[in-house]
Amino acid sequence: MRARRKKWAPAELDSNPLIIRPTAEGAIPLRAHFNNSRPIHMEIGCGKGRFITENARRNPHINYIAIEREQAVLAAAARRGEALAQETPLSLAFLLLDVTELATRFIPEEIDRLYINFCDPWPNKKKWAKRRLTHANFLRLYTQLAIPEVHFKTDNRILFEFSLESFNAEGWKMQNISLDLHANMPEDNVVTEYEEKFSKHGPIYRLEAMPPKAMR
Amino acid sequence: MRARRKKWAPAELDSNPLIIRPTAEGAIPLRAHFNNSRPIHMEIGCGKGRFITENARRNPHINYIAIEREQAVLAAAARRGEALAQETPLSLAFLLLDVTELATRFIPEEIDRLYINFCDPWPNKKKWAKRRLTHANFLRLYTQLAIPEVHFKTDNRILFEFSLESFNAEGWKMQNISLDLHANMPEDNVVTEYEEKFSKHGPIYRLEAMPPKAMR
Repeated sequence: MRARRKKWAPAELDSNPLIIRPTAEGAIPLRAHFNNSRPIHMEIGCGKGRFITENARRNPHINYIAIEREQAVLAAAARRGEALAQETPLSLAFLLLDVTELATRFIPEEIDRLYINFCDPWPNKKKWAKRRLTHANFLRLYTQLAIPEVHFKTDNRILFEFSLESFNAEGWKMQNISLDLHANMPEDNVVTEYEEKFSKHGPIYRLEAMPPKAMR
Repeated sequence: MRARRKKWAPAELDSNPLIIRPTAEGAIPLRAHFNNSRPIHMEIGCGKGRFITENARRNPHINYIAIEREQAVLAAAARRGEALAQETPLSLAFLLLDVTELATRFIPEEIDRLYINFCDPWPNKKKWAKRRLTHANFLRLYTQLAIPEVHFKTDNRILFEFSLESFNAEGWKMQNISLDLHANMPEDNVVTEYEEKFSKHGPIYRLEAMPPKAMR
């Protein structure tokens, strides 16, 4: 998501204790960062952070890490997370990073679940299909990191059709497919800012996918 | 689909030249019936036959066979088919048969495509899931017959979610998945009676699926 330039964003990124500030290159060891043996769940493109912070609040026994490439957006998310951390125990971290850096920046088997929520659909342009976070190239990147499950939500029909075919073609197993998530809202569904707004205009699609056994 | 008893149905079934009247048991050789080398496309549960007859009209180079278990419904479909056959060349046959007889009544590799349109969703009853025509047991039956592709349409969201998971779990490859067929109606889509009525109430879902290579 895009956001207006916020003057306070750089200061927030410098001072917020939930933000991981990695070296310019090399792996970012998440297990060492959280310093416990509990599961690590990552969200790619966390927006203003409602999804990840609410998950962190509900599940203090899980370590959450959100990555986001837009500085101002990440700053807003981290600010929200830090405000919540003052009130309640949680395990949450934020990182300024583009998804294309995933494979070089994380250590295989450290991430137990990946959330992809309402990513850019890159609509109607075949040449941009490769940028979709459910494109075969990205799925292979997730399997390189040995991520055992991906949870994916979108309101974009064409992106979801594409994603069903992509996971299927790459041999992933899909479960809990929903073509109208809000018709039977699961108790554990955390509604994102975007989801709240766009669920009024049409169905929210969701699926969970596990990579081929050979690649786990 | 169900229909009221029609007094003329038995006579139609006896006299209509498009109806195949097989022996009580044993294989029904479709290739020999059509007596040509062109593709054979089958519809399971043809209802009143609009889909299969319109396909037969558009594609006289393809052999169509419709199976249906309800006598009165099949009679209506065959009557429609025979009326059209008087006007235009087509290759079309009808057969009174329950889908459970598929594997014992047809010869492997004779069917080139299977259409499943708006089959009974057996909704909300886990114990009835096995009766859904996209249940794993049925998919295995289709692979036994070495059917290279299944084209599936429904307006029932829960059935379509189930079917996506079922094809995926059984290792079928899916393509041309549509979560709102009428939003981008393909030129070759033949609208069934049921589809015309129910597309006003919500999306029509569609997919094409090919069995695992090892089973082809």
